[in-house]
Amino acid sequence: MYAIDRDPLLLTPGPLSTSLRTKQAMLHDWGSWDTAFNHITGEVCRQLVDIVHGADTHVSVPLQGSGTFSVEAALGTLVPRAGRVLVPNNGAYCARILKILKILGREAVELPTAEDSPFDPVAIEGALVADPRISHVALVHCETGTGILNPLPEIAAAVARQQRGLIIDAMSSFGAIEIDVRTMPFEALIAASGKCLEGVPGIGFVIAARAKLEASSGNCHSLAMDLHDQWTYMQKTTQWRFTPPTHVVVALHEALAQFQEEGGLAARGARYLANCQAVTQGMARLGLLPYVPAQAQAPIIVTFHAPQHAAYNFQAFYQGVRERGFILYPGKLTQIETFRVGCIGALKPQDMVHVVEAIASTLVEMGVLTAPLV
Amino acid sequence: MYAIDRDPLLLTPGPLSTSLRTKQAMLHDWGSWDTAFNHITGEVCRQLVDIVHGADTHVSVPLQGSGTFSVEAALGTLVPRAGRVLVPNNGAYCARILKILKILGREAVELPTAEDSPFDPVAIEGALVADPRISHVALVHCETGTGILNPLPEIAAAVARQQRGLIIDAMSSFGAIEIDVRTMPFEALIAASGKCLEGVPGIGFVIAARAKLEASSGNCHSLAMDLHDQWTYMQKTTQWRFTPPTHVVVALHEALAQFQEEGGLAARGARYLANCQAVTQGMARLGLLPYVPAQAQAPIIVTFHAPQHAAYNFQAFYQGVRERGFILYPGKLTQIETFRVGCIGALKPQDMVHVVEAIASTLVEMGVLTAPLV
Repeated sequence: MYAIDRDPLLLTPGPLSTSLRTKQAMLHDWGSWDTAFNHITGEVCRQLVDIVHGADTHVSVPLQGSGTFSVEAALGTLVPRAGRVLVPNNGAYCARILKILKILGREAVELPTAEDSPFDPVAIEGALVADPRISHVALVHCETGTGILNPLPEIAAAVARQQRGLIIDAMSSFGAIEIDVRTMPFEALIAASGKCLEGVPGIGFVIAARAKLEASSGNCHSLAMDLHDQWTYMQKTTQWRFTPPTHVVVALHEALAQFQEEGGLAARGARYLANCQAVTQGMARLGLLPYVPAQAQAPIIVTFHAPQHAAYNFQAFYQGVRERGFILYPGKLTQIETFRVGCIGALKPQDMVHVVEAIASTLVEMGVLTAPLV
Repeated sequence: MYAIDRDPLLLTPGPLSTSLRTKQAMLHDWGSWDTAFNHITGEVCRQLVDIVHGADTHVSVPLQGSGTFSVEAALGTLVPRAGRVLVPNNGAYCARILKILKILGREAVELPTAEDSPFDPVAIEGALVADPRISHVALVHCETGTGILNPLPEIAAAVARQQRGLIIDAMSSFGAIEIDVRTMPFEALIAASGKCLEGVPGIGFVIAARAKLEASSGNCHSLAMDLHDQWTYMQKTTQWRFTPPTHVVVALHEALAQFQEEGGLAARGARYLANCQAVTQGMARLGLLPYVPAQAQAPIIVTFHAPQHAAYNFQAFYQGVRERGFILYPGKLTQIETFRVGCIGALKPQDMVHVVEAIASTLVEMGVLTAPLV
């Protein structure tokens, strides 16, 4: 057993490791009706829109709950009941969108794609040309199930050419991979507090085209999930409709300050890329290779093939690495045994080197690898 | 201007003032897939069920978001699509239930009651006898809009006699006012982290009859709000379906430890009653009287008539009291000018004496009262 003198680092795609400064912002209580708190909400919303350069056209609507709550809210609010949604599908979060649309009674058209391949913008445009009744495309930007990055700029251009609405699940890419609404038009983008912005989990948000949001009254299947109602109320009162998770909101505000201080999206993305390279290179020395081809790998989370060895099992592996101070993430593929290592959060490349050391040491202890290796 | 050397105290019904110990529990990050975190979730759920003595018959399903999210989830999951819900209505949170049912397409029967009167159990039973198609009664226990306490034991008995399902919105009473499912049968009870348990806001929970929950598959209008799906997944994996607000969950766990140390529900309720008496008595000396008759007043939040004086306006009053270190809550009545003072949270009677002093000093400054008063 290893005695570590700190909390385990989270190599997971959210919740993730946050800075102490972000957590310390939660050491105060705030009234949800109070001007001071509502000023913070307003600042957060403004900064979120600025990250996509959307101040002229888009607004940000925060929503209590996990990111999936905001995905459902965006689909339920912005897709009319008679809408039809094209869903390119190369992973678990694409499949979740299909599931939500089915429950909401919105027609969906699936465009299946291999799990290790990014979407083909030409195929997406072809599907739109072939079916004029498709009103929206719901796109997962970085498919966290595998770590694949889908080609947003080309898809956004194709959807715009065909004059449909683009709804982007940017849960695990927002804040780290450039999304510029002026050149990659979208109707809505969804992300959450506890991902690349490095806040704590508890709210999602939808950055929506103001005109589309204003026209969406009455679409939604739910009171809690109704972004039009949430936004209208906030515009009128500056307050959240229902009790916000105040501590989560102030932590996000503090996390955004650090995001700016670090150098914004470019610096954040560069650090994550360095993390991704450090872990991928280190793992290659252990003979552990990524599932996703390098050119399609997002610098967010890496799926690794599990060792092909009789002595390997994920539970023991996870536990061994955990005892060494690092929390890994299980694989999400059904056909192949994998595990995942997140590159996001308050982590730097040196941390990734230590993760690889912990993984090597664990695999040696398990008898999967032979020492010395690193 | 007053210079206060602490955060303002929240005299609000949630978010409310929490202990430093509860907030300090949020200084760590937790993996949502990790056993250590899931153990905490399990402990929280078990303790919540124990508060209503329901371990033999009921289970606790936590849900991300505000308390209203859990209210919608309970109605959407447990009331079949062909169900019909009787909603006694004496305030804003009853009206919200009616609004949710309308959006969800569940039939509702309103039983209007004056805002300053508790429900009449005889009238409720009469409505059930008269309409056998009513499947459920949705009852607000403490109507936070006014602070009125509705007679749960008598209503639960009537609903049980008529063999309908009782769904209790116990948002602001759970943990402070005794609810014993063995003697006050209910199908579901809804509350949230940031109320009388004195956690921070961010999750709600539904304590549901296990048999009814198990039979509720396919009822729900939403993926995010589907308590059957949430519960089934948790049973299978010990994990939350979608990212939980980890820091909020560990804060609730720490708040529950303090709840037990204080002496559980009886001690918590006694402290709130002492708070309520201290503020009511102090305000009476200023000539400010409660809106709700004393026998119907819950020891949770008190609605006071605003001073009848030309120099009074709520914004200036609120700001003056805030500068003195206390955050009040606006009234929620449409016909009468009121304001509210919460009695719940990490507050003791001495704090309520200080609130009254701050109110007196502010009203003197505004020219509404003549000094000296207290």
